[in-house]
Amino acid sequence: MRVMGIDPGIAIVGFGVLDQRGNLLKPIEYGSIQTEADLQTATRLKQIYDAMTKLLAEHRPDVVAIEKLFFNRNVTTAFTVGQARGVIMLAAEEAGIPITEYTPLQVKMSVVGYGQAEKRQVQEMVKMLLRLPDIPKPDDVADALAIAICEAHSSTVIHKLNKRGTMR
Amino acid sequence: MRVMGIDPGIAIVGFGVLDQRGNLLKPIEYGSIQTEADLQTATRLKQIYDAMTKLLAEHRPDVVAIEKLFFNRNVTTAFTVGQARGVIMLAAEEAGIPITEYTPLQVKMSVVGYGQAEKRQVQEMVKMLLRLPDIPKPDDVADALAIAICEAHSSTVIHKLNKRGTMR
Repeated sequence: MRVMGIDPGIAIVGFGVLDQRGNLLKPIEYGSIQTEADLQTATRLKQIYDAMTKLLAEHRPDVVAIEKLFFNRNVTTAFTVGQARGVIMLAAEEAGIPITEYTPLQVKMSVVGYGQAEKRQVQEMVKMLLRLPDIPKPDDVADALAIAICEAHSSTVIHKLNKRGTMR
Repeated sequence: MRVMGIDPGIAIVGFGVLDQRGNLLKPIEYGSIQTEADLQTATRLKQIYDAMTKLLAEHRPDVVAIEKLFFNRNVTTAFTVGQARGVIMLAAEEAGIPITEYTPLQVKMSVVGYGQAEKRQVQEMVKMLLRLPDIPKPDDVADALAIAICEAHSSTVIHKLNKRGTMR
């Protein structure tokens, strides 16, 4: 099972690809798509869309996990992030890859074990769970990997539940 | 000069195509792209993107005018509209068509003549300026035509200013 986590934005899109074998999570590739602030929004959206399409074709994840709307941000941020998220979801849809969505709370619960965890704790757990030498930078990359881990954990649970169901 | 106005949304995207010849505005086509609420967001975004791509190829507007963020809406609405707007801007960018943005205030100023105009007044002016038998429905279509008129008026002003500049 291969999962890709995405932390969307117009300036920086964090991404992280993981392979899951049993309880083991293996990082395949992680990094960011970055666009220049002095470019027109439409140009930046196309750069994000093109880069996403390329990443999806290269890694062929079984699922793309993306952060859900965070209600604590302001309207302008939500609008801008929404635009980037739209073209990312389009790229996944066109590649025929299912999209799952998680709230920041779900990600923290899944990665650290409780919803009040701080950003730094999430990042430390990402580093530990994936056996990385350092916390990936910028934060958007660590966030994307955290979302990917959340998806992997969630898939495992569903998988186990399905198995139990079959065994009855 | 051909302009396309767009009122973006996830359930309904209003569009209006106008030809401008001198002071005359001729409606070419107007209507809406609608998506079903029970479909997944990614599917709806792809339907919007595909329909926009088709409309742009069919009408080849010189410019696509779209409403700018309205600060009075809530975060969830901004996020959802943002996603739809993202794939619409992508479609225009891929077609090589420039995008202009106008605030609701600019649209009201341009169509009715003052910024405090009510929705109904804008719609009546759209009907009158385009010599339509009725106000187009749903509201998103009338809004899209208003944005297209705003773009056409704005282009005329810029055109006149350029002409004056040349005559000096």
